[in-house]
Amino acid sequence: MTESTDIDKAVAATSRRRFLHEGVALVAGAAIVSGLAGTEAVGANESVDNLPPNVPEWMKTPGAPMGAQPYGMPSPFEKHLIKNIPKDLPQYLSASGRTPLQDLDGIITPNGLFYERHHGGVPAIDPEQHRLMLHGLVDKPLIFTMDDIRRFPSESRIYFLECSGNPGYKKPYGKTASELVGLLSCAEWTGVSLKLVLQEAGLQAGAKWVIAEGADSAAMTRSIPIEKCLEDAMLVYSQNGERLRPQQGYPLRLLLPGFEGNMSIKWLRRLHVAAEPAYSREETSKYTDLMPDGSAREFTFFMEAKSIITRPSGGQRLNSPGFHEISGIAWSGRGKIERVDISVDDGKSWQEAQLQEPVLTRALTRFRLPWHWDGQPAVIQSRAIDETGYVQPTLAELLAVRGENYFYHNNAIWPWRIAADGEVINANA
Amino acid sequence: MTESTDIDKAVAATSRRRFLHEGVALVAGAAIVSGLAGTEAVGANESVDNLPPNVPEWMKTPGAPMGAQPYGMPSPFEKHLIKNIPKDLPQYLSASGRTPLQDLDGIITPNGLFYERHHGGVPAIDPEQHRLMLHGLVDKPLIFTMDDIRRFPSESRIYFLECSGNPGYKKPYGKTASELVGLLSCAEWTGVSLKLVLQEAGLQAGAKWVIAEGADSAAMTRSIPIEKCLEDAMLVYSQNGERLRPQQGYPLRLLLPGFEGNMSIKWLRRLHVAAEPAYSREETSKYTDLMPDGSAREFTFFMEAKSIITRPSGGQRLNSPGFHEISGIAWSGRGKIERVDISVDDGKSWQEAQLQEPVLTRALTRFRLPWHWDGQPAVIQSRAIDETGYVQPTLAELLAVRGENYFYHNNAIWPWRIAADGEVINANA
Repeated sequence: MTESTDIDKAVAATSRRRFLHEGVALVAGAAIVSGLAGTEAVGANESVDNLPPNVPEWMKTPGAPMGAQPYGMPSPFEKHLIKNIPKDLPQYLSASGRTPLQDLDGIITPNGLFYERHHGGVPAIDPEQHRLMLHGLVDKPLIFTMDDIRRFPSESRIYFLECSGNPGYKKPYGKTASELVGLLSCAEWTGVSLKLVLQEAGLQAGAKWVIAEGADSAAMTRSIPIEKCLEDAMLVYSQNGERLRPQQGYPLRLLLPGFEGNMSIKWLRRLHVAAEPAYSREETSKYTDLMPDGSAREFTFFMEAKSIITRPSGGQRLNSPGFHEISGIAWSGRGKIERVDISVDDGKSWQEAQLQEPVLTRALTRFRLPWHWDGQPAVIQSRAIDETGYVQPTLAELLAVRGENYFYHNNAIWPWRIAADGEVINANA
Repeated sequence: MTESTDIDKAVAATSRRRFLHEGVALVAGAAIVSGLAGTEAVGANESVDNLPPNVPEWMKTPGAPMGAQPYGMPSPFEKHLIKNIPKDLPQYLSASGRTPLQDLDGIITPNGLFYERHHGGVPAIDPEQHRLMLHGLVDKPLIFTMDDIRRFPSESRIYFLECSGNPGYKKPYGKTASELVGLLSCAEWTGVSLKLVLQEAGLQAGAKWVIAEGADSAAMTRSIPIEKCLEDAMLVYSQNGERLRPQQGYPLRLLLPGFEGNMSIKWLRRLHVAAEPAYSREETSKYTDLMPDGSAREFTFFMEAKSIITRPSGGQRLNSPGFHEISGIAWSGRGKIERVDISVDDGKSWQEAQLQEPVLTRALTRFRLPWHWDGQPAVIQSRAIDETGYVQPTLAELLAVRGENYFYHNNAIWPWRIAADGEVINANA
């Protein structure tokens, strides 16, 4: 019944004695602490009285009572762990806040740190007054209350969401994993199959697109091919168990697994079934891909396979040579991640990373590789391969095809450069 | 690539026209809304101007700017969705706050609503000063900083945690799912395999127990069999991606998947490897099971298979006859949930529920059954079967064996009674 198989592999791959190869020995009867590789010691501000086997000050008096936080919050010692929000945003035209990927573990993004992207601010919608209208090429046009939506059979799925401009192609790209690809998060979504709701209204002949409209002041509008609506699209009201956050579309959003995030219309108020797409602002002047010959690719929905090493990553520092786990996340809008390769020698050779189970379709997949850093400068990078066989390309390969005017759908391999002093920087910046 | 198979089953099982069998028709050109089964209409406080196809007020002005919440919070319209915290708790002896299970979807509990249980309040621990000591029957006693712990290979797993007194056997048990079994939550945990850490220190012959101690003012202490420590026990620092919350053991906790929650020592500061258990207060006068013959079962670690219907459940009301999805959660400390049966006729007959994928070992599993309520009084209940073949018992079966003095490990089937007016109450209260 043990599930430690991949850890066993990690142990086998790297002599376990390397993890602490210079030791953290407890000298009997005294509180002498040295860190991994000998770089940690009792800090100048530390009281030796607080270290084991002595009783630290916080054990000597009762802690905070129950109920101080009826809705719990992170420790005050983690107050730096917030969304990464650029200054001077054009708030009511285009604003974004990024998930601090380099500080997170696993695949679930906590709701408080889920990335944000909006074009007209975050509306404050009373769910009692919110309505969803479904009309157009249907037998029976319908208007739903939130109670109506919740009466449908439900489903819960873990999916990633990613903005298509994550990052764009313009330098300097960003210094950290968050600045680079932090318009990416993953959650367990609960809601209703859009297919069920469309069947309720009855699709008519010629229904080829569903035009979704948000109830924000931008009236965000996108056209969705009917095939996607009948495959795995959801009308979502909950995220990681609780109701959607306002920034993620409260009380109701569309969710199109694996498609560019902009299409998963938040604050969803209207679904218009049509024969043609709407050619809205957000799918003509924006969210199209300008090619070198001056033509524009439109309706490029899928987020292709991609990965990023989050630890170690830009802005972090390796304190000493020795064992360091390389860890990151991989994802594909086409389905499951099949394999992740890691190079620690600037792309000369690649090793297969371990994938953390469960590996789910169109969800983040956590990967890991045990690594012994010899203290020399190094370039590390990851490469995702999805179940369709697609291999994440290099930035040079993408630029050769798409040119410099391209902006969205940059899924390039992203290398980090580690200096001799352990500092980690963006190798493409 | 679709994953809607179980929803398709739901549709097949219940005529889809039943979902909205009395219709929610949009009369062309007017905003006339009627709800499911005709019980919903435009409320007295609603402005018809806000209903589709008209533009609601929140679309007419820009919404809240980015950065108003660097760490996001739920909508103000969800301010009632908080932990269920009893009044007049003996705060520094025994306090608990329950997850509002009846209002949550899926299997992931958001960190803000994760259940709490503590015996000396919640300590405010500076992670820079926190230390874990590992000593006793080991070759090399060790003290770890949090940086040391994070240097080890990591793993991420989705597991439930449950208090063993959830509920106790004493009436009135509780009115809602939260009052009844709300000392239960589920998260994605990231940390280190305890096996790896013990191997680092080197276990000596005769090492049979590990005695874990917390850094709270109760110095919570429990003895863990070495087999569990070498199977799937973890030292955990992150929960749903971000660092542990103070109430869940920040900066470091033990996690023993499937064992009673009290053993997963929070604020972990010491692991003492020993030949015998400690026979601490929490495993002698508490957390033992008094049998009818006066003997006490001790070291009853496993949380056996269990389930609860969360919707509809106590405190809720069915507004009308017609289609209602029955949904709930099942879990077992022994492994995966194999099957969940549901009865809607007071236990006379049972139907197999759909299980939401992924079904993970020692995690919550969401189950669902489409149901058409005929408007007559009914008793509904769920019964979990785990991969060992164990079947969740009735309360009468448990009481027959254990008697009235038993308190912990009540995993009885729990029926809800639905009255003709749709009110749902605890059928055992």
